[in-house]
Amino acid sequence: MADEALFQFLHNELIQYIYKSGGNGETENGKNITKLEAMGFRVGQGLLERFTKETPRFKDELDVMKFICKDFWTCLFKKQIDNLRTNHQGIYVLQDNSFRLLSQLSAGKQYLEHAPKYLAFTCGLVRGGLSDLGLKSVVTAEVAGMPACKFQVMIQKA
Amino acid sequence: MADEALFQFLHNELIQYIYKSGGNGETENGKNITKLEAMGFRVGQGLLERFTKETPRFKDELDVMKFICKDFWTCLFKKQIDNLRTNHQGIYVLQDNSFRLLSQLSAGKQYLEHAPKYLAFTCGLVRGGLSDLGLKSVVTAEVAGMPACKFQVMIQKA
Repeated sequence: MADEALFQFLHNELIQYIYKSGGNGETENGKNITKLEAMGFRVGQGLLERFTKETPRFKDELDVMKFICKDFWTCLFKKQIDNLRTNHQGIYVLQDNSFRLLSQLSAGKQYLEHAPKYLAFTCGLVRGGLSDLGLKSVVTAEVAGMPACKFQVMIQKA
Repeated sequence: MADEALFQFLHNELIQYIYKSGGNGETENGKNITKLEAMGFRVGQGLLERFTKETPRFKDELDVMKFICKDFWTCLFKKQIDNLRTNHQGIYVLQDNSFRLLSQLSAGKQYLEHAPKYLAFTCGLVRGGLSDLGLKSVVTAEVAGMPACKFQVMIQKA
């Protein structure tokens, strides 16, 4: 039995619970997304704290991003990020061609509007993970065509 | 990085969120426990639906319980149940001497009162799993001495 199934089911329950208790309107939607992102942040921080005990230090920012794309993503989703691009000025785009937490939604365009709630927790995971590695960031996500999606990481310089 | 860490952190966030949004009083506590149990139930059902696709059918009730103690528990907690007892009349006691979701709480008695909220989701997981295998049950849990705990399963005869 895939462990990732447990994560997926729990993630779904979390979204449903937050939307049920937090409401479904336009304003509430924003708040719910913020809550999911904050939860992801704390989980990402916690995971990285455990994970990096045995991991060597990173030589630079790009090295950290590669770690997120490979090790961190594999731990979470049993696959690596498919493509990493950067402008070498603190912006990174991580593309996952088959994002696990979207793959249960149908591929049709009518489900695109629900995509943000399935991405918020993961944006938080990345931001929390980076934060634990000393990088402050803003992480956003967009769906190109389901189940592919892109996470954009903007590193905030101190 | 242990996958179980992801489950543990997410489980913690879930508990904290439910208690924050649902309140902390005596009545609310009961409701929060019920919510956690219900979420566990749905996750347990979902997991078993996926899991048993490749698993042979079970020959009897005891066979199902052994599956829960070994395969299901290992998937969730990376260890088996340490001891399974039954009265052969539909009551089973599953003892875990080092229950993962309690191991982060301190071993002192002062934390015992918080234990139920860390057990409710798992009671639901077991009940949901059994339900998917055709067994209706009532599942309760008690802590003997942290982090050991016992889950009691009462199978409801049709």
